[in-house]
Amino acid sequence: MALKSNNTDLTIDQFENFTLNLDNQTNNEAPTQPPPDFGNDAAWILTSTFIIFTMQSGFGLLESGAVSMKNETNIMVKNVVDVVLGGITYWLFGYALSFGESEWTTPFCGWGSFALNPGEEAMGEVYTKFFFQLSFATTATTIVSGAVAERFNFVAYVLFSTINTVIYCIPAGWLWGNHGFLRKLGVVDIAGSCGVHVCGGSSALVAARMVGPRLGRYDQGESPLPMGSPTNAILGMFMLWWGWLGFNCGSTYGISGPLWKYAARTAVTTLLSSIGAGLIGMGVSWYKNHRLEIGDVVNSVLGGLVSVTAGCALYTTWEALAVGTVGGLIAVMAMPMFDKLHIDDPVGATSVHGLCGIWAMLAIGLFVKADMLLRMTRDKAGLFRGGGFYLLGVQALSCLCVSVWSMFSTFIILTVIDKFFISIRMSEWEELVGADFAEHGIRRRNIGVSRAVSVLGLQHHGYDYSDIAPMGDNPCHQKVLSEMKALSRRGSTVSKAVAQVTDNKAKKIKLPSINFDCLFFGRKKKRPKSTNKIHVVPLQSQEGFGIWE
Amino acid sequence: MALKSNNTDLTIDQFENFTLNLDNQTNNEAPTQPPPDFGNDAAWILTSTFIIFTMQSGFGLLESGAVSMKNETNIMVKNVVDVVLGGITYWLFGYALSFGESEWTTPFCGWGSFALNPGEEAMGEVYTKFFFQLSFATTATTIVSGAVAERFNFVAYVLFSTINTVIYCIPAGWLWGNHGFLRKLGVVDIAGSCGVHVCGGSSALVAARMVGPRLGRYDQGESPLPMGSPTNAILGMFMLWWGWLGFNCGSTYGISGPLWKYAARTAVTTLLSSIGAGLIGMGVSWYKNHRLEIGDVVNSVLGGLVSVTAGCALYTTWEALAVGTVGGLIAVMAMPMFDKLHIDDPVGATSVHGLCGIWAMLAIGLFVKADMLLRMTRDKAGLFRGGGFYLLGVQALSCLCVSVWSMFSTFIILTVIDKFFISIRMSEWEELVGADFAEHGIRRRNIGVSRAVSVLGLQHHGYDYSDIAPMGDNPCHQKVLSEMKALSRRGSTVSKAVAQVTDNKAKKIKLPSINFDCLFFGRKKKRPKSTNKIHVVPLQSQEGFGIWE
Amino acid sequence: MALKSNNTDLTIDQFENFTLNLDNQTNNEAPTQPPPDFGNDAAWILTSTFIIFTMQSGFGLLESGAVSMKNETNIMVKNVVDVVLGGITYWLFGYALSFGESEWTTPFCGWGSFALNPGEEAMGEVYTKFFFQLSFATTATTIVSGAVAERFNFVAYVLFSTINTVIYCIPAGWLWGNHGFLRKLGVVDIAGSCGVHVCGGSSALVAARMVGPRLGRYDQGESPLPMGSPTNAILGMFMLWWGWLGFNCGSTYGISGPLWKYAARTAVTTLLSSIGAGLIGMGVSWYKNHRLEIGDVVNSVLGGLVSVTAGCALYTTWEALAVGTVGGLIAVMAMPMFDKLHIDDPVGATSVHGLCGIWAMLAIGLFVKADMLLRMTRDKAGLFRGGGFYLLGVQALSCLCVSVWSMFSTFIILTVIDKFFISIRMSEWEELVGADFAEHGIRRRNIGVSRAVSVLGLQHHGYDYSDIAPMGDNPCHQKVLSEMKALSRRGSTVSKAVAQVTDNKAKKIKLPSINFDCLFFGRKKKRPKSTNKIHVVPLQSQEGFGIWE
Repeated sequence: MALKSNNTDLTIDQFENFTLNLDNQTNNEAPTQPPPDFGNDAAWILTSTFIIFTMQSGFGLLESGAVSMKNETNIMVKNVVDVVLGGITYWLFGYALSFGESEWTTPFCGWGSFALNPGEEAMGEVYTKFFFQLSFATTATTIVSGAVAERFNFVAYVLFSTINTVIYCIPAGWLWGNHGFLRKLGVVDIAGSCGVHVCGGSSALVAARMVGPRLGRYDQGESPLPMGSPTNAILGMFMLWWGWLGFNCGSTYGISGPLWKYAARTAVTTLLSSIGAGLIGMGVSWYKNHRLEIGDVVNSVLGGLVSVTAGCALYTTWEALAVGTVGGLIAVMAMPMFDKLHIDDPVGATSVHGLCGIWAMLAIGLFVKADMLLRMTRDKAGLFRGGGFYLLGVQALSCLCVSVWSMFSTFIILTVIDKFFISIRMSEWEELVGADFAEHGIRRRNIGVSRAVSVLGLQHHGYDYSDIAPMGDNPCHQKVLSEMKALSRRGSTVSKAVAQVTDNKAKKIKLPSINFDCLFFGRKKKRPKSTNKIHVVPLQSQEGFGIWE
Repeated sequence: MALKSNNTDLTIDQFENFTLNLDNQTNNEAPTQPPPDFGNDAAWILTSTFIIFTMQSGFGLLESGAVSMKNETNIMVKNVVDVVLGGITYWLFGYALSFGESEWTTPFCGWGSFALNPGEEAMGEVYTKFFFQLSFATTATTIVSGAVAERFNFVAYVLFSTINTVIYCIPAGWLWGNHGFLRKLGVVDIAGSCGVHVCGGSSALVAARMVGPRLGRYDQGESPLPMGSPTNAILGMFMLWWGWLGFNCGSTYGISGPLWKYAARTAVTTLLSSIGAGLIGMGVSWYKNHRLEIGDVVNSVLGGLVSVTAGCALYTTWEALAVGTVGGLIAVMAMPMFDKLHIDDPVGATSVHGLCGIWAMLAIGLFVKADMLLRMTRDKAGLFRGGGFYLLGVQALSCLCVSVWSMFSTFIILTVIDKFFISIRMSEWEELVGADFAEHGIRRRNIGVSRAVSVLGLQHHGYDYSDIAPMGDNPCHQKVLSEMKALSRRGSTVSKAVAQVTDNKAKKIKLPSINFDCLFFGRKKKRPKSTNKIHVVPLQSQEGFGIWE
Repeated sequence: MALKSNNTDLTIDQFENFTLNLDNQTNNEAPTQPPPDFGNDAAWILTSTFIIFTMQSGFGLLESGAVSMKNETNIMVKNVVDVVLGGITYWLFGYALSFGESEWTTPFCGWGSFALNPGEEAMGEVYTKFFFQLSFATTATTIVSGAVAERFNFVAYVLFSTINTVIYCIPAGWLWGNHGFLRKLGVVDIAGSCGVHVCGGSSALVAARMVGPRLGRYDQGESPLPMGSPTNAILGMFMLWWGWLGFNCGSTYGISGPLWKYAARTAVTTLLSSIGAGLIGMGVSWYKNHRLEIGDVVNSVLGGLVSVTAGCALYTTWEALAVGTVGGLIAVMAMPMFDKLHIDDPVGATSVHGLCGIWAMLAIGLFVKADMLLRMTRDKAGLFRGGGFYLLGVQALSCLCVSVWSMFSTFIILTVIDKFFISIRMSEWEELVGADFAEHGIRRRNIGVSRAVSVLGLQHHGYDYSDIAPMGDNPCHQKVLSEMKALSRRGSTVSKAVAQVTDNKAKKIKLPSINFDCLFFGRKKKRPKSTNKIHVVPLQSQEGFGIWE
């Protein structure tokens, strides 16, 4: 196929005979400015990032499905907080510390572009990069929320989430910033196994350890507590699964030139790794329990995804499968180990993100061949590929640096919050009635919330919780129905009884006149008429009716 | 980097030295026909629209999570109806009234392309535009469904949804059609703050006012009723959040030339605006209640998204943050105000879409700089940018025209439906038992549905509702278990008892022979054998077993 | 608009005067190798596939929402299994049997590329194709899981899912492989109505027939059993709806040249077909029941989507609407028919996928015009377009071949599993307590699970199920609260009571020292103090508190 111009008779063989003249690039006068056709690359990056943003919902659903129901909504809100506060701080100083390129930038910390606001010339590249990196940052901060679920004070979490950005941004600069010392050493972490997952997992470990296990968690053994909504947990996993495709494939950072080939390979290796991990995870779960524990299924698949993330664009299919299988095994084996140590991590974040992230980095140092086309590995190869220990060493060093940094800074931040601002742990009252009730005024039924309130009292910290109506119900309707029954006005129609027991009619007269009321042409609101009589019919409980709910 | 041809020795520096020769475009012989590489733009628009379609699920979940459980599914169905009926009418006449370009087109109404069916030459551009605009139209019509939830008659809603398209399409033509008088005045509404949200919000206000508040809504004060599923509401918000990225970024209507730069900026401003809004919304909620109300969190974020939609591609980061913060404040402050006026809007659609939409339009008239590259503002600037009152005036005029049109036409349509076809309000019976039960035969447990049925009777409008089994349960199994218990055949195996109490075996003999039955080779269906004995074991209620559910 | 180079003064009129020189392509020296700009096409295919992967969640939610609650999570897990086991087998041999091109390939079966692992030169095209086809394969295998829900043995399903790939891959090769005999005859099945849906639907029919109806299913008539979560079912439908846009539009397999025009048309025809189907489905449901059954709404929309899938890129809008309307009618009319035959298909997979798939294929043979631009129909036209019976005959032959193959191979595989490995049917014990409890240790409340366990005993197949705690609850907290109430230590603070009834304090001392413990600087964990007293307050049941849950 060829492109032929009718005007100039110039024929271009649709670029198939063009070679990439890379030499020109180095001595080009404007090497930092991407060429105008970055548009296609930007479209790829933006589309991938749209898909990455679905992961926030995935994390929310997975975490909220995995904890007990009385904390379900609270952890969804924490994920909202991660976007809102993580987003504002990433814009204010996170991006600056990761990718800032002012004169103050050192190999250990970027500086510049605080409160990013690029001009019209640069905005395309800068905004694309910022948007993509922001989606990484909010993902990293959300990992911690699962590990400390069900007992971390909400206000303390909000404070932590605000500062947390700094924990992520410094090592992101080491790995991916032009200034980064790890990058200069040649570390390979394509889509963030170290930058996102080791970082988040280490942070999660320290936070879970510091806040302590849930009340009575290990009084009855170390087996996992029942999930609040396993269906939501699996749905969340599916969302993470599809979002991860955007996460890894988008990390080629474009589709121009040979980049699209790497994107295609990434899609397949990402899937195959998770498939290998799911296989081993289900096998282990079946072997141990003679049934498939949802936690094992979910966490093995996620473990496989984390494990392939660092080298996703470089593996062959067999390597991806092997890397994922080991990752899945790590995820499901490590969770009970942490429980043995009485480190209570309700969603297994430390195992899935922390340990599998480390494995992901080391696997590159072991298996990866030198990538000739994009030179992603800087001509280095893994240990088993004859590359010696250099790459493996750099990968291990990166894990060490990032995890020590994350653990240390998390410890400092939480200590400061706990000592000087607010206890990082909920009070026992809050923990026993659940964060949904205490922090958001949500009272679920049939899961022990009312029982807890009944034992512990309706007052807490001086606030009165007695006006919180049960969820899902319409208290106004309950009142109407109660009064209708009390009147026992058999023979009266429903409409008449409703008019009598509600003061809707009176209300309508008192309705304040508002500016567009003239539009109504003095129309009287028509009440639909019903000729149905009231029948108080206590049916037999067998059919479910008549049980006075 | 440069592209070098091996054949012709021609080197192209990958377009970086090409400038856009815009003069050629104006005196081109076919200016309306997009160049062949519209394919890339179309791919961007189509992909964005795929993501926009996820917003329908988002609206459905948000609305169904926000109302009481007994109306949860009904409002999901209303969202399906919006796609189905809104889609068919948009195809039949909606697109024609918005973008039709026949000789009958006036500045106030398009005409032409009814029941769109383009030929093969034009189909690419036309279908792309239609698909994109259709996703806008179904979004606009769905806004109303939340505001009238829990008491609007389902059949009346179906009728309204059918005609509703006309309410949206006329002002869409004013704003975006080549004929539109507002467009000719130079209005700026990039992704529909006025066309979608002011329009939908105004419609919602009138509809909510006309249908009246829910039964007994304000008898016990004006605080919001408990949500049926706050987790679903937040999940819906997340879906809207990610869908909004497609909505706004897709509104650049391509990525070619400099368009991708605007898409990248749009992504960042959209996020930052929602972040600012979320911050202020959470702050206000905490200040007022000492807890985070889910409604405040959700609606402030959405208010921020609506507020940035009109000018998403034009703002700087600081402006986006400011616009969003004001928008979030409007959203959370206006909701209780409407409740004070006893206008019952269960999801806050009027505040979030109507008021924030107006703010979005005015903000452009205040803050926006003249956009030199794409000339989106037609060289006009906002009041604070030295552009005087012209742009602000046009923006305000647009809001006025669109909201008056929407309110007036909604009023007319609902009046006609109510007077001549069917009451727009559910009967009290339906409202008290809930639309899920009355309209879809869904009987939930433990939320008062059975109680309502017990008081009000099983008959309604001559229909008998006694055969509706409780949700989630398997009534066949319940019957089997009841009979097994009654027999008390201790010592009998489960299999034998099952065979006795069900007529499965008899059924199997009577099974009609169907065409592929020969494939079964006369195989007898094997019943799996179980040696388990029946044990009726009423366990202690402490452990949850033995409670005869 | 024109591109002008500042360096060479070469002006390119942005390709608008270039024509596609297709002659060059045929005598090109490397015709199989796509040109380097396949990158854009690949980006389109990959993005579509990301969206297709959301369909797995859609199927999961739809199926889990449609069955009774006690099997909800089990069917989600089955969808995970479909990806994991379907994925590994598709990689191992599925792709090889569909698209392998070694010398062993016959018109009936591909051969080659087992355990796909392409080199760096070919990886772009191969991985893109594999990734796209894999998403089709997992979709086909998941159709069966719905039809056999609530009574198919989980282990048998895992075995079946592993082998199932072969059922799909052979006919996929017939239809889409270069070797396929149906392809050579000129069959048109653009996005898989025959390859995916007829195949999956036929398989589902045989599997549902072989496993038999649910216990007591037809003892109380043939009306559908209540759905476990209609809201989830509709959410699943929405996900399938949006995923289907990726499915069909991605099947243009690119956007270059005129392909994007077909993608745009596909988007519109896909939507219009589902809209027509939804209209007729809702109409029929209303006419039959005077209410909208969720099953009818969902299945008619899906029926419309299946019906348009085969010819999505070829129809005009009117044709799409007509095809969808007939499809929707088939879907809702056929479901009760299968119930009359006592073939128990809880989600209607046979009707929606099988019958609508056949209609989709025949509709092409009736309505389609010869497609001149891409020559998708090989210059053949449908019966009503003057093309005679040839195309119709080929389409019918394809349906016959694929459905006979699928039914026969499903029958063989299930027979072998049932006779030699494990009964394909759950035991009655498992069916009555539900697969969630039996296979995953999930005990839901208020839906009859405890009742079943109470009648049938806590032991099954030698396994003891007594340690399974009820879902959503926190058993540790329940224990704490019970003991606190028993102590009735009025006047004591909550904190003191908690410290007394839990052994948290003791535990903390025994916590093993781990490697990063030094970071804690010997810090003592601070217990947040609360001055709240314990009040055992049995409130009146009217307000919901005080009911000892």
